[in-house]
Amino acid sequence: MATEKMTENVSILAISGGVGGAKLCLGLSDELVGSNLHIVVNTGDDFRHLGLHISPDIDTLLYTLSERNNVEQGWGLRDESWNVMSELENLGGDTWFRLGDKDLATHFGRTTALAKGAGLCSVVDLLATRMGIANKIYSMSENSVQTIVSTDEGELAFQDYFVRLQCQPVVTGFRFEGIDAAQPDPAILQLLKQQSPFATIICPSNPFVSIDPILQLPGMWQALRDSSAPVIAVSPIVDGVAVKGPAAKMMKELDMPVNSLAVAEYYCDRYPDLLSGFVIDNSDVALADAIRSLGVDVYITNTIMHNRQDKQRLAQFILQAVVCQE
Amino acid sequence: MATEKMTENVSILAISGGVGGAKLCLGLSDELVGSNLHIVVNTGDDFRHLGLHISPDIDTLLYTLSERNNVEQGWGLRDESWNVMSELENLGGDTWFRLGDKDLATHFGRTTALAKGAGLCSVVDLLATRMGIANKIYSMSENSVQTIVSTDEGELAFQDYFVRLQCQPVVTGFRFEGIDAAQPDPAILQLLKQQSPFATIICPSNPFVSIDPILQLPGMWQALRDSSAPVIAVSPIVDGVAVKGPAAKMMKELDMPVNSLAVAEYYCDRYPDLLSGFVIDNSDVALADAIRSLGVDVYITNTIMHNRQDKQRLAQFILQAVVCQE
Repeated sequence: MATEKMTENVSILAISGGVGGAKLCLGLSDELVGSNLHIVVNTGDDFRHLGLHISPDIDTLLYTLSERNNVEQGWGLRDESWNVMSELENLGGDTWFRLGDKDLATHFGRTTALAKGAGLCSVVDLLATRMGIANKIYSMSENSVQTIVSTDEGELAFQDYFVRLQCQPVVTGFRFEGIDAAQPDPAILQLLKQQSPFATIICPSNPFVSIDPILQLPGMWQALRDSSAPVIAVSPIVDGVAVKGPAAKMMKELDMPVNSLAVAEYYCDRYPDLLSGFVIDNSDVALADAIRSLGVDVYITNTIMHNRQDKQRLAQFILQAVVCQE
Repeated sequence: MATEKMTENVSILAISGGVGGAKLCLGLSDELVGSNLHIVVNTGDDFRHLGLHISPDIDTLLYTLSERNNVEQGWGLRDESWNVMSELENLGGDTWFRLGDKDLATHFGRTTALAKGAGLCSVVDLLATRMGIANKIYSMSENSVQTIVSTDEGELAFQDYFVRLQCQPVVTGFRFEGIDAAQPDPAILQLLKQQSPFATIICPSNPFVSIDPILQLPGMWQALRDSSAPVIAVSPIVDGVAVKGPAAKMMKELDMPVNSLAVAEYYCDRYPDLLSGFVIDNSDVALADAIRSLGVDVYITNTIMHNRQDKQRLAQFILQAVVCQE
């Protein structure tokens, strides 16, 4: 196949949040030489819980790319046991954030390494290596950035909003505590400058709480814009609904139309001249011209990823689109 | 039985380390109205590991008194699973200190409560209540006291010496970091002053690393000495060996004779006028006169506690001895 040959020497930089991004990254990983796939992951959702440093999006990537994620549940590991949580419940402890036994081992590994002075980025490397992952996964920054959700119930730490309150409060905005003083992982900037990935793909993740924390890091989106690699975003909104998570609910509460056009407009307004292309689902074909009028190429395909084949197919499609961009 | 009637209104204060102390406390708990048994427990072994606050001696008491301790293993819970440790091993994490899944829940409960501002003493209360324990268990202090073992390999944190290095280094002494600034739990001092327990029992725990950290707390042994309750110690050395743990090895390395007389001498030298009575095993009857010459009454019985009945019998014997003291 043309794609297979084409992708042998292709490096891709993917920008990803949790589940949706991880799905596409698994597809990309199947289509690329493993070490040529570089994934920058949101750590704005990171938090300390039960004394542990938890990186939900990083772990979703690690578990998905090591093919151990719990697909039905949508988070955590498959073949998981819950002995710690179950006993903690008996003791009246905090169990609102469910942590499986094997999942806990990841958090222990991370927390211990951090306590010994390792940086977040090297910890991700270590965990990825131990899990047999060939792709290069980057924590977006070594520094702490905390996504804070402004709601009708006041400001909420992201996991309070997302897990404890199950996204019920009405969103009025977001801020990323610590972001002004944070730096993108220098390895990412170096990659963009020196190794020039073939393309950057903004995964179909939540624009507000997964992609923005990454792009808002000082110098980050400008580095992407100024790199020779075209930036292609994949819409997380398909036919007016979010494939997963609260993106659609957030858009509605922020008085945005809930469709892929609004996502494209949001990215183009916030990050001028960043996007070269935008991938939308077949069901959104009617919006293609409006998106094109924003000055970006539009690629239309089936973007829903139910199974491994769907992921590979979407990855192939995007890689082909990148070839057209060249 | 005379003892049963006698013990209805008896309050006992037990001073305890881990396994040996917990055995006797379980026996005492069976012989007393639960809430009349007050147990002050060593927290010099406490340490942070994997981000968690671990209180090994407190937990041994909690697990023993809730009848869930692993008797064969000598530590931890019975019917335990090891899913977290097993996965942490796969990840190359720290697994030298083995923590079972249910055991981990205890440490999470404690660590979370401490992080929310609770004190060590109230955390013990909370855990004891959740585990259905009627006895009153006290952390010896709200303050951090860290037992440091001086050895031929330098100074070692207690768990490094005890678990990681399996007590192999040669001991030259001990110190308790933070003890000068620490205070005994005020509830213990209040108990001694106002409620006057019928007697204080120093359990057959390690004198150097279990009992000393408690008695060396500022004002602690003097409060015991000045209370109207007689203080009876039970020898942890029987027939020249420690029933469990490194007490005998330590005595040898400190150039002490390894026998119950040396333990009695140690207590009498270090804590003048504290001991009223000393309980030794039948096998040490030959040492009785020498111990008496230290000015303490000697009680001789079978002090080995293999089963529940042994524990109850030793507890009964000591409670009878206390009656004789009056």
